[in-house]
Amino acid sequence: MEKNELIELFEKVFPFWNKMSETDKETFCRTAHHVVFKKGTNVHNGNECTGVILIKSGSLRLYMLSEDGKEVTLYRLFPGEMCMLSASCVLDSITFDVYVDSEENSECIVVGGCAYEDLSRRLVDAKLFALETALSRFSDVMWVMQQILFMSMDKRLAIFLLDEIAQKGGDTVALTHEQIAKYIGSAREVVSRMLKYFASEGLVEASRGGIKILDKKRLREMSL
Amino acid sequence: MEKNELIELFEKVFPFWNKMSETDKETFCRTAHHVVFKKGTNVHNGNECTGVILIKSGSLRLYMLSEDGKEVTLYRLFPGEMCMLSASCVLDSITFDVYVDSEENSECIVVGGCAYEDLSRRLVDAKLFALETALSRFSDVMWVMQQILFMSMDKRLAIFLLDEIAQKGGDTVALTHEQIAKYIGSAREVVSRMLKYFASEGLVEASRGGIKILDKKRLREMSL
Repeated sequence: MEKNELIELFEKVFPFWNKMSETDKETFCRTAHHVVFKKGTNVHNGNECTGVILIKSGSLRLYMLSEDGKEVTLYRLFPGEMCMLSASCVLDSITFDVYVDSEENSECIVVGGCAYEDLSRRLVDAKLFALETALSRFSDVMWVMQQILFMSMDKRLAIFLLDEIAQKGGDTVALTHEQIAKYIGSAREVVSRMLKYFASEGLVEASRGGIKILDKKRLREMSL
Repeated sequence: MEKNELIELFEKVFPFWNKMSETDKETFCRTAHHVVFKKGTNVHNGNECTGVILIKSGSLRLYMLSEDGKEVTLYRLFPGEMCMLSASCVLDSITFDVYVDSEENSECIVVGGCAYEDLSRRLVDAKLFALETALSRFSDVMWVMQQILFMSMDKRLAIFLLDEIAQKGGDTVALTHEQIAKYIGSAREVVSRMLKYFASEGLVEASRGGIKILDKKRLREMSL
């Protein structure tokens, strides 16, 4: 990636860019990695300090992982967004482990955690930005928790299917029951049973490519 | 409460106290309320800006609430700690609602949210402190989420009972099944069934005052 292009990106995503010294700007550019993560790659693993990840294309999925390998998706990140929880050395107060996978082939810029941490000790705006970015995800996680703990499964599944086609376009959700279960924090059996019920109600139908949505209107009513 | 006493407390809990102007210090003292919340009182309700709550004695419980009244306890606050999530006007990025109840008669100092917010716009250290305090609770909440989503109920109940007697002393947990269910994010029926099982295993026994712990050692093994 061209240095000019990199600077343009940094200017856009870091509100404190213009307050940085020339030396610091140089360091950021020099330590930044341009990486393309293949679909399905693990991008960040627990308590490592992978760095601040800026997403240029594709999408990343953040999740929790239990000891026996069960996953719960917390949220996804899309182009223009950034992952701050993967820069654990910047954020002392984050003591939990999150995992990040690439959901599609994803082009990312990774700013080294050390470079950011070093900057944030000298430039309070960088520190504020890191804290605020991390804290804003607290709200996302609480939302997921509300969904999982309080909402009934039919509602959750309806919301998930509608979100999927809203994001990806088309009318078919190209995921397995296993994958859907991971996304909504449930078990495959539960998802399969609910999809069978949805099909019997004429809301969806199993198709070669995945799950075809037949009645968006009624799914939307279920999701309210 | 004496003003001197108040200043002494603020010096201890706010690391930025000595950087505040005399006027700001005056405002903090003037807008601070000394309140004793009776056991069971609701202290903070959803998206209000109640202010920053410092706990002098007693304990507060933070929880989420579903539309149909189901509660999940996120964490508790004890003397010397402070509640920042109740000062929602200080934290723009917190968009979820939490509820706070007093678990015992609790003596608190409440610093007005407006006074804090006003200060944090002028004194970056106050802003940083608010963000860091809020963010450190993110880790607590993630821990609860891990417990609820990934851990089996017997383990959760064992941990809860051991925590209770470690905190309160004695060998009896003076809570109803309903209350325990609220604390561990479960249903009363599930807790009752599990306690019956624990009793049949000789781990606990129902007593007049609540649940008496008979075999700490084995409970501890279960909690690992």
